[in-house]
Amino acid sequence: MADRPLSGGQTAAAILALALIVGLAGDACHVAAGTTTYEWDGVPTVWRSAIWFPVALAGSVLAAAWLSERAGTPAVRTRTRADAVVGAAVVLALYAVTALLNDTPATVSVVLVGAIAVAVWAWWDPSPGALAVALAASVLGPLAEVAVVSLGASAYGEQVDGLGGVAPWLPWLYFAAGAVAARLWPALRG
Amino acid sequence: MADRPLSGGQTAAAILALALIVGLAGDACHVAAGTTTYEWDGVPTVWRSAIWFPVALAGSVLAAAWLSERAGTPAVRTRTRADAVVGAAVVLALYAVTALLNDTPATVSVVLVGAIAVAVWAWWDPSPGALAVALAASVLGPLAEVAVVSLGASAYGEQVDGLGGVAPWLPWLYFAAGAVAARLWPALRG
Amino acid sequence: MADRPLSGGQTAAAILALALIVGLAGDACHVAAGTTTYEWDGVPTVWRSAIWFPVALAGSVLAAAWLSERAGTPAVRTRTRADAVVGAAVVLALYAVTALLNDTPATVSVVLVGAIAVAVWAWWDPSPGALAVALAASVLGPLAEVAVVSLGASAYGEQVDGLGGVAPWLPWLYFAAGAVAARLWPALRG
Repeated sequence: MADRPLSGGQTAAAILALALIVGLAGDACHVAAGTTTYEWDGVPTVWRSAIWFPVALAGSVLAAAWLSERAGTPAVRTRTRADAVVGAAVVLALYAVTALLNDTPATVSVVLVGAIAVAVWAWWDPSPGALAVALAASVLGPLAEVAVVSLGASAYGEQVDGLGGVAPWLPWLYFAAGAVAARLWPALRG
Repeated sequence: MADRPLSGGQTAAAILALALIVGLAGDACHVAAGTTTYEWDGVPTVWRSAIWFPVALAGSVLAAAWLSERAGTPAVRTRTRADAVVGAAVVLALYAVTALLNDTPATVSVVLVGAIAVAVWAWWDPSPGALAVALAASVLGPLAEVAVVSLGASAYGEQVDGLGGVAPWLPWLYFAAGAVAARLWPALRG
Repeated sequence: MADRPLSGGQTAAAILALALIVGLAGDACHVAAGTTTYEWDGVPTVWRSAIWFPVALAGSVLAAAWLSERAGTPAVRTRTRADAVVGAAVVLALYAVTALLNDTPATVSVVLVGAIAVAVWAWWDPSPGALAVALAASVLGPLAEVAVVSLGASAYGEQVDGLGGVAPWLPWLYFAAGAVAARLWPALRG
């Protein structure tokens, strides 16, 4: 891990790169497992995702990271680039775990993903500011996906569409991603 | 996380609240997955648990935390309230994981839960004192559940009742919970 | 955890002991789940493993740990014996998790095991030196297993033999083990 701080543009590029890796790999798990299906034909795909998915996801992560940095709410813990790799990898692992839960009762999947998401926040940066970003992500992310599903662009599997057409554990996956995104800017800038 | 130390009564209340959340959510996973079944009719239930379960569990966690504090065995690591949230969330995640293991060979489930339990102890407080509490919990907890099962109050599923009527991984789940409980008092008091 | 540094021979013995525990318990999971099968009759077994497996594995871990120590590449983090227990337990938990993935699409299992493996490296010692050992292990370990499978000594299950006869997630399991092995010598010596 290099020690020199990155410029603003470099930091943004690093966040986009990390979000693209996590988003594309995680979404590939969901498509492979049948957790989600893309419904529109003729849309270009990147790996297993329709092209609009990584664009929207990476843009959202960058916006969350940048707005959190601008808001200037105090962090409890100072995070390094190596910590950011741990955080992003743990969110990706959680993303992959959700692809294993298609036959799992919702009580179990929601408690499992929720407990890990809370642990991620309390480990990464147990601050009110990161909690606010995590909570906002846990509401806005699933609402956006409900809209996408309503448009018919994608669908969750029959056994995991119980929350307005999306998976019941989805808010907690966004919670974990939002908590990490909240401090990604200073962590990657160095 | 507020910085002011809690009084003894407040610390006890915080421990009870945390134990109730973890116990009720974890037990709801076990009931939803068929890992455990409550057999007595007419007993009031809280979420998915017969009412005696959260009472016994929260009381036991509080007793373990308070006795560990009174015993005064030295901790290797000083833990904060945020750490306690991580510890409790990890124990709850492990609790939920056990609800996924009903069709898993006992060798795999015992090694998996055991490895995570040992990691929890070695991360949270790798001290002889916390190990002693974890080991005591790993014996006393399953023995108490064997007694409950013998009384006919609850039952483990057919595929996970191989340890005297309870699950073979149960000692390791108690081990992890006991390790964390051992230092919950100072962590939550602040 | 005792505080006195170990001699070279004691350190080597501790590494062998840890590698034997992790290797035998992890391999028992693979055999119990049908992930791997030993094909040669008449070979003495230790727990569920043909005797050559723990010998080869423990020897390889010791060699990796000793060569890394001799190479003298700088570590980013100083690790203690308690950390080594966490690291070994996490690798064993990951080993056990792979035994749950026989019916999982390769995309999901590779992303899950890969994400956890990267998190292990970035947590344990996010240094170029540990990365080099992890990468070397991720190539040499699976190549050795491909050779063993070619000799007919063991076999992976039909659904998890897609990488030249071995499991597609196997490089990542070796990656995690290699990353931890890279700093096991100083961690256990104390």
